[in-house]
Amino acid sequence: MDITLNQAVQQLRNADNILILTHVNPDGDTLGSGFALLRALRKTGKRARLLNGDRINAKYSFLYEGLNEDDFREEFIVSVDVAEKKLLGDSLKEKYGDSVNLAIDHHESSRRFAQSTYCEADSASCCEIIYLIIKELGVKIDKDIASCIYTGCSTDTGCFRYSNVTPRTHIIAAELIKLGAEHSKINTKMFDTKTMNNIMLESMCLQGLEFHAQGKIAVITVTQEMLAKSGTDKSALDSIKPITRQIEGVKVGITVKEEEYDATGVSIRTDEDVDAAAICAHFGGGGHVRAAGCEFKGKTPDEVRQIVVEYISELIRNDG
Amino acid sequence: MDITLNQAVQQLRNADNILILTHVNPDGDTLGSGFALLRALRKTGKRARLLNGDRINAKYSFLYEGLNEDDFREEFIVSVDVAEKKLLGDSLKEKYGDSVNLAIDHHESSRRFAQSTYCEADSASCCEIIYLIIKELGVKIDKDIASCIYTGCSTDTGCFRYSNVTPRTHIIAAELIKLGAEHSKINTKMFDTKTMNNIMLESMCLQGLEFHAQGKIAVITVTQEMLAKSGTDKSALDSIKPITRQIEGVKVGITVKEEEYDATGVSIRTDEDVDAAAICAHFGGGGHVRAAGCEFKGKTPDEVRQIVVEYISELIRNDG
Repeated sequence: MDITLNQAVQQLRNADNILILTHVNPDGDTLGSGFALLRALRKTGKRARLLNGDRINAKYSFLYEGLNEDDFREEFIVSVDVAEKKLLGDSLKEKYGDSVNLAIDHHESSRRFAQSTYCEADSASCCEIIYLIIKELGVKIDKDIASCIYTGCSTDTGCFRYSNVTPRTHIIAAELIKLGAEHSKINTKMFDTKTMNNIMLESMCLQGLEFHAQGKIAVITVTQEMLAKSGTDKSALDSIKPITRQIEGVKVGITVKEEEYDATGVSIRTDEDVDAAAICAHFGGGGHVRAAGCEFKGKTPDEVRQIVVEYISELIRNDG
Repeated sequence: MDITLNQAVQQLRNADNILILTHVNPDGDTLGSGFALLRALRKTGKRARLLNGDRINAKYSFLYEGLNEDDFREEFIVSVDVAEKKLLGDSLKEKYGDSVNLAIDHHESSRRFAQSTYCEADSASCCEIIYLIIKELGVKIDKDIASCIYTGCSTDTGCFRYSNVTPRTHIIAAELIKLGAEHSKINTKMFDTKTMNNIMLESMCLQGLEFHAQGKIAVITVTQEMLAKSGTDKSALDSIKPITRQIEGVKVGITVKEEEYDATGVSIRTDEDVDAAAICAHFGGGGHVRAAGCEFKGKTPDEVRQIVVEYISELIRNDG
């Protein structure tokens, strides 16, 4: 059931022993939302803890700095930035997938899997919504909460770069900086820090860059061998995925990634003429209009590249 | 003489036939400031024109779209984002260097070369100051002016990423988006568009990447041959210069560039422990604390790299 922001706040106000769930391949928005909410709920005297189905990259450790672990039998479950059950990851999905009380989200593709959903699809980040919720809860936003929220506002907009940014995004960012968010440190960590290994991987990816459809489609392929050779892991993909779409004339940028299990992942970034979420939905995936993903079980990168490029070439041709 | 913002506005209000000067190697801030001011002054019925000592990169053409050329004997000269006379370029410096009436600037290193200077060194961009001036002039900021101002706010902060960003920067950005600034299109043009040639140059630069001082200094060298091979020109350097400083552990990132004349340019980017402006001042250059430049006449890239790396290694060692 869709509810209003005030109803969501009321549910949180009435709850205690709150479990917060975040999505797999955790990014700055799901973690920033989760830890900001956790910190705010604890400030009101409630017990709260957070679970993620994946390993959290060390660069996000500042989000939970100073927080104690807690363990209790959850009475209320809230998910943040999770569009559908399966994005909780297999184990959390099995355990909690059918008992989420409240989903707070900003994905157009939200599947309304929880008892109640508050979803603002035109919010640039889930953290913007969390900011409003925490204010409405009457919690004073301290420096740590501000930094958590800022992280999602910044990472989900490519540092205020994408078309999802609204005046509200900037107004909230201004408030968060006033409240002590360490904006510049956070941005350096999120956007401006590459290891030598990352740079090696980038160099390899550029060498294998392919173009299709008269340069309208660009594809980068990342194999497990490339990750091993460069000493990187899948988190390095964050800096690879944007490369293709940045090239002049490219309408659809594709990153094809061989998974460590028998599958190939695809990340798609598009310009304003092409709907990435629709393309990925066709292949059983989802996401945002400009950035989405899907996965092919039991297929190699070469096979997947051919399937995806063929489908998108056709799509672009038909759209003129 | 240093004057207040209101005095600067008063001077502009009293003036007519206004010549606006911008700095060489024109960037989004000097051009955004210049064309925003030009558009605003013309809206008040005044005549205004803008000069730049260099060729303006085509990606900035939207800043002057729809503007007519004008020619008149200037009665008032205002420079924007120009810290010292020589940054006007040789020909404009000779012609106007000693007769600038008003310098509007945000460089710590401003040399106060004009009759009057309004300089806010803690403003993230000159465009922020131009926004305040245009508001104070009573001109309604239209979509085009908003886009010009947004361009400088965004480019001089690495798209709201650097430590120079203040709450005011975000508040102004929010206003500009409300007023119709095409933020996402501008950011794509400024930050997210690379030609295939740019990518080739990047690939070459990464191959020649050097480290010194236990990885605290990283150096990229760009020769005329590399520019020719990749089919790029000096404007491609904008996307090369940030690379070195982004590498984990690097405190000083150096880009050494062979000029088309007998000289070698140096661009320095630093983390918060090292003052780039001070380093460049030592070599007769200048700029901001985190990003500055200098030039060595009659020296090769190899000679310059050695001189600069040696000096900075010593500096870092002394600072512990």
